[in-house]
Amino acid sequence: MDFALSDNQKNIIATFREFGESVFTPESVFQWRKDQGLPDEVVKGFVDRYFALDDQSPDGMGIMSQTLILEELCRCAGAALPFQNDLFNLQIMGGFADETVSSRVLDDYRQTGRLMFSLGVSEPNAGSDTMSMTTSVETRDGRLVLNGKKTYVNNGEYSPSILCAAIDKDTPSEDEYPSLSFWLIPHDLPGIRAVPINKIGQSMVPFASVSFDEVELKPEYRLRGHEGGFRHLFKMLEFGRVFTCAASLGMAQAAMEDAVANARVRKAFGVSIGQFQQVEQMLTDMEVSLRTMRSMLYQAAWAIETDQPDKRLAVALMKRYIPKTATEVASSAMQILGGLGYTDSARVSTIWQDCRGNQIAEGTDQIMVYISAPLIMKEYE
Amino acid sequence: MDFALSDNQKNIIATFREFGESVFTPESVFQWRKDQGLPDEVVKGFVDRYFALDDQSPDGMGIMSQTLILEELCRCAGAALPFQNDLFNLQIMGGFADETVSSRVLDDYRQTGRLMFSLGVSEPNAGSDTMSMTTSVETRDGRLVLNGKKTYVNNGEYSPSILCAAIDKDTPSEDEYPSLSFWLIPHDLPGIRAVPINKIGQSMVPFASVSFDEVELKPEYRLRGHEGGFRHLFKMLEFGRVFTCAASLGMAQAAMEDAVANARVRKAFGVSIGQFQQVEQMLTDMEVSLRTMRSMLYQAAWAIETDQPDKRLAVALMKRYIPKTATEVASSAMQILGGLGYTDSARVSTIWQDCRGNQIAEGTDQIMVYISAPLIMKEYE
Amino acid sequence: MDFALSDNQKNIIATFREFGESVFTPESVFQWRKDQGLPDEVVKGFVDRYFALDDQSPDGMGIMSQTLILEELCRCAGAALPFQNDLFNLQIMGGFADETVSSRVLDDYRQTGRLMFSLGVSEPNAGSDTMSMTTSVETRDGRLVLNGKKTYVNNGEYSPSILCAAIDKDTPSEDEYPSLSFWLIPHDLPGIRAVPINKIGQSMVPFASVSFDEVELKPEYRLRGHEGGFRHLFKMLEFGRVFTCAASLGMAQAAMEDAVANARVRKAFGVSIGQFQQVEQMLTDMEVSLRTMRSMLYQAAWAIETDQPDKRLAVALMKRYIPKTATEVASSAMQILGGLGYTDSARVSTIWQDCRGNQIAEGTDQIMVYISAPLIMKEYE
Amino acid sequence: MDFALSDNQKNIIATFREFGESVFTPESVFQWRKDQGLPDEVVKGFVDRYFALDDQSPDGMGIMSQTLILEELCRCAGAALPFQNDLFNLQIMGGFADETVSSRVLDDYRQTGRLMFSLGVSEPNAGSDTMSMTTSVETRDGRLVLNGKKTYVNNGEYSPSILCAAIDKDTPSEDEYPSLSFWLIPHDLPGIRAVPINKIGQSMVPFASVSFDEVELKPEYRLRGHEGGFRHLFKMLEFGRVFTCAASLGMAQAAMEDAVANARVRKAFGVSIGQFQQVEQMLTDMEVSLRTMRSMLYQAAWAIETDQPDKRLAVALMKRYIPKTATEVASSAMQILGGLGYTDSARVSTIWQDCRGNQIAEGTDQIMVYISAPLIMKEYE
Ligand SMILES: Cc1cc2nc3c(=O)[nH]c(=O)nc-3n(C[C@H](O)[C@H](O)[C@H](O)COP(=O)(O)OP(=O)(O)OC[C@H]3O[C@@H](n4cnc5c(N)ncnc54)[C@H](O)[C@@H]3O)c2cc1C
Ligand SMILES: Cc1cc2nc3c(=O)[nH]c(=O)nc-3n(C[C@H](O)[C@H](O)[C@H](O)COP(=O)(O)OP(=O)(O)OC[C@H]3O[C@@H](n4cnc5c(N)ncnc54)[C@H](O)[C@@H]3O)c2cc1C
Ligand SMILES: Cc1cc2nc3c(=O)[nH]c(=O)nc-3n(C[C@H](O)[C@H](O)[C@H](O)COP(=O)(O)OP(=O)(O)OC[C@H]3O[C@@H](n4cnc5c(N)ncnc54)[C@H](O)[C@@H]3O)c2cc1C
Ligand SMILES: Cc1cc2nc3c(=O)[nH]c(=O)nc-3n(C[C@H](O)[C@H](O)[C@H](O)COP(=O)(O)OP(=O)(O)OC[C@H]3O[C@@H](n4cnc5c(N)ncnc54)[C@H](O)[C@@H]3O)c2cc1C
Repeated sequence: MDFALSDNQKNIIATFREFGESVFTPESVFQWRKDQGLPDEVVKGFVDRYFALDDQSPDGMGIMSQTLILEELCRCAGAALPFQNDLFNLQIMGGFADETVSSRVLDDYRQTGRLMFSLGVSEPNAGSDTMSMTTSVETRDGRLVLNGKKTYVNNGEYSPSILCAAIDKDTPSEDEYPSLSFWLIPHDLPGIRAVPINKIGQSMVPFASVSFDEVELKPEYRLRGHEGGFRHLFKMLEFGRVFTCAASLGMAQAAMEDAVANARVRKAFGVSIGQFQQVEQMLTDMEVSLRTMRSMLYQAAWAIETDQPDKRLAVALMKRYIPKTATEVASSAMQILGGLGYTDSARVSTIWQDCRGNQIAEGTDQIMVYISAPLIMKEYE
Repeated sequence: MDFALSDNQKNIIATFREFGESVFTPESVFQWRKDQGLPDEVVKGFVDRYFALDDQSPDGMGIMSQTLILEELCRCAGAALPFQNDLFNLQIMGGFADETVSSRVLDDYRQTGRLMFSLGVSEPNAGSDTMSMTTSVETRDGRLVLNGKKTYVNNGEYSPSILCAAIDKDTPSEDEYPSLSFWLIPHDLPGIRAVPINKIGQSMVPFASVSFDEVELKPEYRLRGHEGGFRHLFKMLEFGRVFTCAASLGMAQAAMEDAVANARVRKAFGVSIGQFQQVEQMLTDMEVSLRTMRSMLYQAAWAIETDQPDKRLAVALMKRYIPKTATEVASSAMQILGGLGYTDSARVSTIWQDCRGNQIAEGTDQIMVYISAPLIMKEYE
Repeated sequence: MDFALSDNQKNIIATFREFGESVFTPESVFQWRKDQGLPDEVVKGFVDRYFALDDQSPDGMGIMSQTLILEELCRCAGAALPFQNDLFNLQIMGGFADETVSSRVLDDYRQTGRLMFSLGVSEPNAGSDTMSMTTSVETRDGRLVLNGKKTYVNNGEYSPSILCAAIDKDTPSEDEYPSLSFWLIPHDLPGIRAVPINKIGQSMVPFASVSFDEVELKPEYRLRGHEGGFRHLFKMLEFGRVFTCAASLGMAQAAMEDAVANARVRKAFGVSIGQFQQVEQMLTDMEVSLRTMRSMLYQAAWAIETDQPDKRLAVALMKRYIPKTATEVASSAMQILGGLGYTDSARVSTIWQDCRGNQIAEGTDQIMVYISAPLIMKEYE
Repeated sequence: MDFALSDNQKNIIATFREFGESVFTPESVFQWRKDQGLPDEVVKGFVDRYFALDDQSPDGMGIMSQTLILEELCRCAGAALPFQNDLFNLQIMGGFADETVSSRVLDDYRQTGRLMFSLGVSEPNAGSDTMSMTTSVETRDGRLVLNGKKTYVNNGEYSPSILCAAIDKDTPSEDEYPSLSFWLIPHDLPGIRAVPINKIGQSMVPFASVSFDEVELKPEYRLRGHEGGFRHLFKMLEFGRVFTCAASLGMAQAAMEDAVANARVRKAFGVSIGQFQQVEQMLTDMEVSLRTMRSMLYQAAWAIETDQPDKRLAVALMKRYIPKTATEVASSAMQILGGLGYTDSARVSTIWQDCRGNQIAEGTDQIMVYISAPLIMKEYE
């Protein structure tokens, strides 16, 4: 066992720390939250560094490195950032597309820092229960037609394309799962309509609902790299869970830093508030939480990277634990800041709001129990 | 012991339920949150009903009735409402002003539904530790001069006057507390400046910081009804704590209603989600919380109204318990709504945000321990 | 609403306080725990006072009075006491027996203070799921024969009779419940065998498993007062839940008293430990818990006594909340006593153990969710 | 970073697993709890394996290996074991004694498996606040005299010697700490009296209070290897905290295994209880807890072994987190076992009791906040 970061990992973190600390100031973050996104130079700055490091590593950037990067950037910003979404969407696309499509998208992303597509999986009546999705493609009168509605589509209003998961009505299911297909669809086709949905947090990653009404598709939109269906999708989702948790941890860490800073300088009743045991207790338990979250996160990323047999369980337990715990840490930080913490002059307030969303995104706290318990029963056999 | 509401109490609740349910629709509340306040007809509707009932009761409206009204209205609206603030400010003014001033203000309020003053107590360097306030009035060259800065002043930007707590430098302290005075000051005097502060919730009760720079006061601005100083102020604050908790409970109850409604109709994995034991457990514990909160609230209000010897402790314990617990209930409701609960299409999201503020307003969770523990030690002697 | 105790209630409490404080000393309780029961003079002292008051009240002792008595006695003793069991067993018997049997048993109890029977409901394979009990009576060759096994039978080793719930194989079920009968059986019949089970707490209420192997019954053993079956039994169980919670609360209150006493006198780092905010916070939250538990308890008892429509829900929510919360209070008290609290020189240690059992007895924490959730769904319709 | 155990570590665990599983059966553990200790062949079996491995490793057994051993053995036994105490006492002695004394004691231990001394640090009026100890040695009329009283001395009644911490009255303090000395004293000197104290758990590690009344010491009893005083003692205590937490984790793991086993086979309402989401949720959160505890434990041991700069903080945070969390896991396991879990037929009941003690032993949950908070403030500077 070795709990120290490797030199390479330290280097990755240092690179993004330097970048993050230079671009993310309280003022810039405040502004970009309002803008609901990051400016070109920041996203470009990110991809430049990201792919530089990616090119250097023999096997490219693994999930462990991506995790460290997301954690560090979210710590610097004290906010949920679109990069988390980018990396996840790339993973999904990589999981289903063939080489040609993949590299076209990737090249574009490298050059612009803007991922050209958003991802549509959840539906109004299929959230936790992904498999009951009803958006579907079928051949009718020789035309491929898409109908349905996706919701909570991150960046769904702005991205030029949408990567849409749909039931393939033309192909009968071969197992207990319905047959699933992925389509990379230009956003401006007739019949597509996106309506923004207002979250109460994570404002730099705005989402929308996207409806498809008799949208005619070309066959080449279909991703054909890996037709694993739902089973494969579920595996892919685990990347998203790790990234979400990396973001939660980074934000909680930022909240901690603000809390300690305030506890040190803020005075009440003649002493600095960091001397009150109630505050000391909060800080201690927050630090415990940060460390336990970090180990859950790294072990899950490591389990995927090194293909451990219990990786699915490790990811579900991590996702059960981190988002909730990060929200609690953020809430304690808010409490330590007092009245200020409840205003938008302190980033702990928005961190708290951003963190909360991750208890629902990428599978709710409850769904993680639903996934974990049977795996635990098996593991203890 | 009798846990049933009296007929009079039932009548009060019914009156405001009917009013609340008619004016507060999801759409109206959404709009008024944006407007940061309620329209004239609503505040007028409130005072009309309030004073009609007040006039009927032999001793006027007591704190128990006020509590029931605030709880019920916040339940209908699913939001923190300015009425809570009005009733508290009136209480403070009543506690320090003489008959003449009091009735002038009250008459105006009755007619317009707009309280003509905001209340300034907290300061940038004196929040939990009220007594370290530095805003002060002194006679200099025959002129009464006010200097200092108040913060978190509800409605501080809009109200025509401000009721300002200030150290009276002309009068030496007679006990361990500095000598305190209250001044009802027109907002448009030279040297007064208000700057809005953005909360992350409770948007219908906006607050501001208000600074006083060499503001010249007239002697008649001074409230002279009761010069009890800090000791009296602390007693008054207890009313604010009860009102805050009434609001928290009302909002939590609203969240519960939305959660149950969703649990009943929302389906996942082929059944309504209310059948999953994880959801059942949340609902059960939420209902337990609502009931325990309600009994803490009513007992505290009753302790004040019937002047029980342990009323100070009852209030502090209530304030320790309710705001935190209400936030948890709201968070569980949000969870039960899934993705929707994290958007502003569902009021549970804003209820959660509104509730959180009450863990800081009117004395933080920690200050309640600071107040309670010595009283407990005494009570068990 | 009125949160004050009536004079009659105050009198009841005073009577048992005086009694409890005289008989229960730390030494006597320590001894009676070892003896696994109370001596004759104490049980006699109890019934004398109990029935004296009972005779005075026009409608006899109601559940509210019983609740107050049990709470007070458990507070004095800092222990689970057999009286809780007596009152529950009487209730069950009263619920199923006719006048003749009832008064015979009651008279005996009045005179000796020893209830002549123990109650057998739970079985090795039917705990939470009472209805799957398999102990049964049937007529075979003209003989009434009982077979089966009961477990967790309080006092099952010592009491001269056992009141046994059994499936009535001779009578077909008339609804979705199997048909249920109760039998008051002498303990010394051939085929009955009791084996003690060692609990880790509640040692004054020892329990045993009791097996019945071809036990021949007389028809007159059968209780014939009320043949309500399982539906009626479930209603009866609610009394047991109230009594259990009264005991939990009384014990938690005792723990609190010891904690405060210790916090006052114990010194560390030059000050009394009650001055450390961590201890203050524990004491404050313990006092909050005691008050919320008390209101849940009284409201449930009151709901039964005044036949409120939501009484079943009130009882289940109370049982969900109190035993767990009481255990937490006891655990905090133990913590405040430090090393001493983990030894049997301090009663907080055994209080903690006694409290824990009530999270399982009379329906587990989980079963309370199982009962409550559907009732909540209905109540919010 | 690498979360996998090394081959050497796997080997160590395998050795003790094989040993532990062979000697610790439910029956043997039940018996040895009653005996308040382990039989000769078991303690001999332990030291044989321990020193065999110790001799093999170039630098002897480090704290990481010791941690793995204790965790594994406590998992097998489902109980607190005396080995934890042995290893800690050896550490303390090694920290203060010179080579000669050390090897004498060690040799004896190797041969018998019985450590020849118990350790006396805590006093009736100096528990958390070790430095206020008053047991002292002084030279009077040319004689070295020891007076005072130690308490919670593990094995204090039985061990042939006692290692006693005492204020050295002959030597003036050189810093803010009183001057401290350690004495290895034969138990049978005149003036020494040991009285057993009954814990409510951890019965295999019985403790006692030991009083010293004008006990005359020989100068050679004094340990002279390292006279670091309190500062050094505090450093040593950290080993004890790691061992305590290893034991807590091992026991919690045992409880988990029993819970899963029961959840699999136990049936209620027609299904195995492991299918109820309330049980699933408990199991999931227990597994999360086990994994977070494990990482806190290993990281703290690793921090000491590799002399990380934040090791003191890592240990305090671990001790803050693990004992409390382990008790919760044990309590959930008990709940899953239902009525059985509250009896001594199931080891979860005694595991729960054993775990609870560790929230007090080796520094209370509160003292860990007291230690951690200032270190956190420093770390975030
Ligand atoms: C911030 C945020 C970002 C998101 N980003 C994306 C995105 O990029 N792409 C995308 O496709 N979607 C996204 N989502 C949607 C998200 O995946 C869903 O909201 C989530 O899976 C829950 O689905 P739902 O909202 O339909 O809730 P439901 O599935 O209706 O759940 C309602 C409640 O029922 C509970 N429940 C459901 N099933 C069970 C069960 N078996 N056992 C116990 N409880 C159960 C849930 O836990 C929840 O409490 C995002 C959501 C949020 C909040
Ligand atoms: C929604 C909202 C509405 C408000 N409305 C009003 C209003 O109408 N009028 C008004 O005057 N003010 C108002 N306030 C201000 C409020 O009263 C203060 O924010 C609050 O008293 C805390 O003061 P502070 O912000 O200065 O925090 P601080 O006092 O600086 O506290 C910072 C942290 O230190 C802790 N702390 C402080 N002292 C102790 C102690 N002795 N022991 C342990 N911990 C301690 C606090 O709990 C907190 O965690 C409002 C605040 C909010 C959030
Ligand atoms: C101190 C004590 C005193 C007692 N006194 C008596 C007495 O006087 N008379 C008597 O008859 N019995 C008595 N009992 C027995 C008690 O009623 C049962 O132990 C209890 O009902 C649980 O049953 P079980 O032990 O069979 O556990 P099980 O029913 O096997 O339960 C095992 C676990 O499964 C869970 N579970 C079961 N069903 C569900 C579900 N539907 N949903 C979710 N979780 C579920 C339980 O909560 C528990 O965690 C006593 C028990 C104790 C501990
Ligand atoms: C199972 C067990 C095994 C033990 N083994 C040993 C052993 O082998 N050798 C040995 O010497 N001792 C041993 N002890 C004793 C143990 O070290 C002490 O019990 C412990 O340090 C607490 O001291 P105390 O009992 O005097 O409690 P106190 O110090 O009196 O503490 C009472 C309460 O005050 C709180 N408190 C104290 N100071 C503060 C503070 N500054 N801030 C906040 N709260 C505070 C404590 O947390 C506690 O809640 C053992 C104890 C137990 C339970």
